[in-house]
Amino acid sequence: MNIEKKYNLYKKQVDKKINFFLDERFPASLYQPVKYIMESGGKRIRPIILLFSCEAVGGNYKNALNAAAAVEILHNFTLIHDDIMDNALKRRGRDTVHNKWDVNTAILSGDGLIGYAYKFLLNTKSGRIVEIIHHFNRAIIEVCEGQSYDKEYEIKTDVSIDEYILMIKKKTSKLIEISCVIGGLIGNADEKQIRILKNYSSNIGIAFQILDDLLDIDSDEKLFGKKTGGDIIERKKTYLAVKALEVVKNGKERKLLNSVFVNKSVKIVTADIIEQIKVIYQKNGVLDLARKEIRKYTDIAEYNLAKLTNENGVEMLKWFSQMLLSRNY
Amino acid sequence: MNIEKKYNLYKKQVDKKINFFLDERFPASLYQPVKYIMESGGKRIRPIILLFSCEAVGGNYKNALNAAAAVEILHNFTLIHDDIMDNALKRRGRDTVHNKWDVNTAILSGDGLIGYAYKFLLNTKSGRIVEIIHHFNRAIIEVCEGQSYDKEYEIKTDVSIDEYILMIKKKTSKLIEISCVIGGLIGNADEKQIRILKNYSSNIGIAFQILDDLLDIDSDEKLFGKKTGGDIIERKKTYLAVKALEVVKNGKERKLLNSVFVNKSVKIVTADIIEQIKVIYQKNGVLDLARKEIRKYTDIAEYNLAKLTNENGVEMLKWFSQMLLSRNY
Repeated sequence: MNIEKKYNLYKKQVDKKINFFLDERFPASLYQPVKYIMESGGKRIRPIILLFSCEAVGGNYKNALNAAAAVEILHNFTLIHDDIMDNALKRRGRDTVHNKWDVNTAILSGDGLIGYAYKFLLNTKSGRIVEIIHHFNRAIIEVCEGQSYDKEYEIKTDVSIDEYILMIKKKTSKLIEISCVIGGLIGNADEKQIRILKNYSSNIGIAFQILDDLLDIDSDEKLFGKKTGGDIIERKKTYLAVKALEVVKNGKERKLLNSVFVNKSVKIVTADIIEQIKVIYQKNGVLDLARKEIRKYTDIAEYNLAKLTNENGVEMLKWFSQMLLSRNY
Repeated sequence: MNIEKKYNLYKKQVDKKINFFLDERFPASLYQPVKYIMESGGKRIRPIILLFSCEAVGGNYKNALNAAAAVEILHNFTLIHDDIMDNALKRRGRDTVHNKWDVNTAILSGDGLIGYAYKFLLNTKSGRIVEIIHHFNRAIIEVCEGQSYDKEYEIKTDVSIDEYILMIKKKTSKLIEISCVIGGLIGNADEKQIRILKNYSSNIGIAFQILDDLLDIDSDEKLFGKKTGGDIIERKKTYLAVKALEVVKNGKERKLLNSVFVNKSVKIVTADIIEQIKVIYQKNGVLDLARKEIRKYTDIAEYNLAKLTNENGVEMLKWFSQMLLSRNY
């Protein structure tokens, strides 16, 4: 089967699992927002990379469908809670949960999703279920650590690229990594295969987040589904911001960067300021540097992936991560 | 060993597990509030009832210490998030996490604790680990459902006693129930023993929550650690409120109850109003009815408990639940 067809087939089967949330359940104040976020679509990146990883080590993807649903559910928990913390009003082109309902409802529906994520995960039939759950636990812990760093960095004025990488490894990359590892475990991968999958996916995860940072100012708002420049408004230390603060040392440009990211003398970040910052990023090569970094981490990922002996598996995963990293929204 | 001594010994060993959180970890914005709540003490009710249940079916409590820590950690997650939703400023006599830090910090540290709860649980060596995790998952889901009902009932004007019981079964009783069941599973209980532990603990849980409702207006604020009348301020449909709305049909008293719990014409619930409502509860026998209900559920619990064949086990658990239910703070 052609890989794109396979992707669409697997996505449909993941969605079928997730349709569990479409049934009416009570209390409505818990299950309506849960249904709302779970039916809001998305590319189902984590479940698909899990299923492909399972197959890439010789496993049957059908055994991994519950775990695939589990990582997607866990991902949606993080979206709901992160959107509260980041004051995000839009997600996938629709109101965020706390915006449509309220913060309490968003807290609770996120919490509930964690319970359901484990419920689906535990339905996995595997002799390695304890290992699988161990990785899932690590993901929750590290995602929280990453989000905490992200919030700390909004205040911290001197974030280095290393600190930035540490943050996104936890906040974004970890869940993608454990998706691959869990897929591998369900496919009964040996230690070497697990190591390969881990190195592949953790680098893909980093590239994926730097791309996301780039798309914050460099994509069509309607397609991206989030507000353009949202990261700048929240004074996030994205790759772009950290790099710009590193390379732009003097003058008017530096003053503007400082006023948004360092001393915060600018109280409200307007569309005009976002536009000016975009120009600074472009003029100083920050966007190109970001694209180079994405290429670098993708290359490391693919170098690792090539060590898998299953040629079909290599091809599938490579196709998938190239699709992910060529997106422009 | 005398039971009280045993309780103190086990409590110390649970605390020793929980001392894991005293080490300095980063990011500080995640781990300082986690440390703060975990060292704030409490009676460690859920871990102790878990350890006693393990022993009551012939197991070795030492095998259950990780699971005991897990239920306590999960309980503390619910406290942090519930306190946000209930606007509670004090807990165990100290500032609540969102009050001391902020809502975002409280959301994240609660989330992080869920990850750690599973981490500890998974350290349990048991051939029945999948069953154990299944019950833990159910607890998270039902605690969220219960908390959602609780929030819905703040707005709903006609909450029946049945609806109230459904809510507290999920919100409070479920975690106590699965603590006993997990203790039993680690002690390798048979089906009948598990059923007995379940019936015992779910009824103890209900009695425990009705007592908590009672103590909201009938205890020493300093000892209780929470604000007197906090439930009335939040217009919670506690046992007392639901019962009072059922028995007080007319007159000035009904008008006052309505103004707080039904039409909410009273915008700020003052200390004076709390005092007046307390008098209404007393005069109309609501406090006595609450005490009778506590007795009723305790009796059902003990009737079930007596079916356990291990006499020592029965004695231990009975001692513990009697201690819990004789507390006046």
